[in-house]
Amino acid sequence: MVKAVLSVVLMLVVVSSTIAKYIPKTGKRVPQTLSRGWGDQLIWAQTYEEALYWSRSRNKPLMVLFHLEDCPHSQALKKVFSENNEIQKTLDEDFIVLNLMYETTDKHLSPDGQYVPRILFVDPSMTVRADINGRYANRMYAYETGDINLLISNMQKAKKLLKGEL
Amino acid sequence: MVKAVLSVVLMLVVVSSTIAKYIPKTGKRVPQTLSRGWGDQLIWAQTYEEALYWSRSRNKPLMVLFHLEDCPHSQALKKVFSENNEIQKTLDEDFIVLNLMYETTDKHLSPDGQYVPRILFVDPSMTVRADINGRYANRMYAYETGDINLLISNMQKAKKLLKGEL
Repeated sequence: MVKAVLSVVLMLVVVSSTIAKYIPKTGKRVPQTLSRGWGDQLIWAQTYEEALYWSRSRNKPLMVLFHLEDCPHSQALKKVFSENNEIQKTLDEDFIVLNLMYETTDKHLSPDGQYVPRILFVDPSMTVRADINGRYANRMYAYETGDINLLISNMQKAKKLLKGEL
Repeated sequence: MVKAVLSVVLMLVVVSSTIAKYIPKTGKRVPQTLSRGWGDQLIWAQTYEEALYWSRSRNKPLMVLFHLEDCPHSQALKKVFSENNEIQKTLDEDFIVLNLMYETTDKHLSPDGQYVPRILFVDPSMTVRADINGRYANRMYAYETGDINLLISNMQKAKKLLKGEL
């Protein structure tokens, strides 16, 4: 008897909490993540302002990654990028990370134009490291899936902070 | 025998996929969401630039919500806000939404200073609606948990777009 009452109460709780929560007409959505698949275990900054703040205050270089969900080059790079443990570990331990699908108003982040995928490094002194680039002369900050090792070596370059070089 | 081989293969697959994924030293993290608990079913813009773009192109007003995870007023408002179906439905259907924990460089979003929680409405014409405010003279855009109905009526105000008034 007690058991039956308990299960009725439990059912009511379940039903009422189901009713209580807003569900869109088009059906329940999976909550958006800040990683957008580029590394679920990384702590991503939400905005460029926030990323610069963390970069300065923690004295870590910042990686800014521009991409689009409907760009096959971005998607291919994302797969290799997110599955590469060396990249993920280095970013987690030594970098501030930000991925963006919309351009910022800061022109320094598009030294040779706005395209995706595009990766820029920023020093904690807030200097965009335009000197750290990929292998394509017409799109200096683009990386293809085959450029992962170049990207890793560029990350090592970015880790040597500018003021360390003075 | 076949069964045994199959389960060994399956185990290997499970083990290797476990090894393959990067896990931080401090343990596995729950991926960050863009909603940060303010409405998991809403489609949140990531940055102010993105939010303005969607607001203009979809001709919907924008709600910008500033908050902090370690601010008890923000947390209390978040609970009431996220559990209020009228707010969630209206925002989902008629608004572009953005929640930020860091200030933008746009001074129009802090007409009377930077504090949290703070809610600003922006018209699709990209005009910050400084005329839509809460009930506190010293913090015009702050809302407490008891101000939810005022917030709902302010959302209705924001839905009457500025150019509709001309």
